[in-house]
Amino acid sequence: MKIGIIGLGLMGGSLGLCLRENKLISKVLGYDTDEKNAKEALNLGLVDELASFKEIKTCDIIILAIPVDAIVKVLKELKDTSSNTTIIELGSTKKEIIKSLPKELKSHFIAAHPMAGTENSGAKAAFKELYKNAVCVLCESEAAEVKHRQRAVELFSYLGMQIIFMNASAHDHHTAIISHLPHAISFALANFVMKEENKKNIVHLGGPSFKGMSRIAKSSPAMWGSIFEQNKENLLASIELFQNELELCKKMIQDDDEKALKKWMKKANALRDIL
Amino acid sequence: MKIGIIGLGLMGGSLGLCLRENKLISKVLGYDTDEKNAKEALNLGLVDELASFKEIKTCDIIILAIPVDAIVKVLKELKDTSSNTTIIELGSTKKEIIKSLPKELKSHFIAAHPMAGTENSGAKAAFKELYKNAVCVLCESEAAEVKHRQRAVELFSYLGMQIIFMNASAHDHHTAIISHLPHAISFALANFVMKEENKKNIVHLGGPSFKGMSRIAKSSPAMWGSIFEQNKENLLASIELFQNELELCKKMIQDDDEKALKKWMKKANALRDIL
Repeated sequence: MKIGIIGLGLMGGSLGLCLRENKLISKVLGYDTDEKNAKEALNLGLVDELASFKEIKTCDIIILAIPVDAIVKVLKELKDTSSNTTIIELGSTKKEIIKSLPKELKSHFIAAHPMAGTENSGAKAAFKELYKNAVCVLCESEAAEVKHRQRAVELFSYLGMQIIFMNASAHDHHTAIISHLPHAISFALANFVMKEENKKNIVHLGGPSFKGMSRIAKSSPAMWGSIFEQNKENLLASIELFQNELELCKKMIQDDDEKALKKWMKKANALRDIL
Repeated sequence: MKIGIIGLGLMGGSLGLCLRENKLISKVLGYDTDEKNAKEALNLGLVDELASFKEIKTCDIIILAIPVDAIVKVLKELKDTSSNTTIIELGSTKKEIIKSLPKELKSHFIAAHPMAGTENSGAKAAFKELYKNAVCVLCESEAAEVKHRQRAVELFSYLGMQIIFMNASAHDHHTAIISHLPHAISFALANFVMKEENKKNIVHLGGPSFKGMSRIAKSSPAMWGSIFEQNKENLLASIELFQNELELCKKMIQDDDEKALKKWMKKANALRDIL
């Protein structure tokens, strides 16, 4: 079994690194439009070989580990792939991708979202443990054949992932709240703090709290710009509801209502029972 | 040299644990109004002995590791302490504390803010490495005698901390932006997400991004409620400026201005060069 990975960054590169250890896979081929990054991926041993886009098309499994707008484009170029090839995309949004899916690919296409990642990007950010113990959401498009669905389940479970199923609309709604909104907040916090503060103060006062809250503001604009656009409606709704919550906090401080403030904080503490 | 720690939680307990190794310190005494927590601190070896408030007053150094509103109260009860005793408070706000400082304590009082902590609280949260390599801000009140200032520097440098000096107003202004605002945001995010989502979705979709952004929402309400109140004006100003930044993000999404959005994200990426 031959695997072709399109996009050799954090996600694709880490996947290649893991899959090279799988004895049932004869070869992990890699493709990246950024030649320098592709070479780096090869040098780091993330893939067995680099390949042309045409060669990638002949693989048994093709993985799309690229920004969500690029996924929409590349799927069109994969129209003529054999229906025996499983095409798996790893995007963070689903509805737009599934909506734009060429009908020729419906029987062998799988939409997957591994809930794993770091703020780093590119081949050098890849590491073998990225997927271990993380959740992988599979948004089954009903038209996909059982053998392709099973391949995807086998592949992600081999990585040590916990697999859950969700439809595309639900996925985009919930990830807007739980993943995309936190990114919007972190980008906004980082930008605000760097506008207000000089480097020295950030270095001195940026303890573990600020570091934790601003870490994902270091994430790739190419990746997150397209996610924000593709999940526009859900994300805007989430930002507005979050703004209300923050306004509530402001109001309690303004009113010197420390009792209510502490109660509100205690409510937030309930997250301990969940995560 | 005898040290007395008032408040045997994460901060006080971790400090006791470290100081017990210091050969120049003959005894680390601990005091906590929560008897159960005090016993736990003793059992965990965070202090050598528990002591009464009266005994604590006889120590060479007294550390106040309690919420900022409690610091204001306890300082009044320490009025009659010998001027040879160094009183060090570890609060996250400074202006209100220094303003309320009894004049009897001015010559032997040090306001310190170790930029260290976790979301956990209580004696069982303490650990020896908490202060290692973190920054400690010293807000020198001009009236403090040199010997007390030197003692504080020696103590915090023994913990492996990097010491910096800042006046109280500047401290409160900058920590509002870099530390207190991130806490307000995290509490708001956690509360919003728990209102909108069930436990199952949070568990499944709460990857490293959400975990990082909501971690400090698990922090102690007793501690943070008082910080928000004592640093009210600065925090409100910070929240408002942050709200503007988030509004900017929303606007770019609404306008489908992906180019501007990516540029804004790239700006936030500059944090890589600082932290």
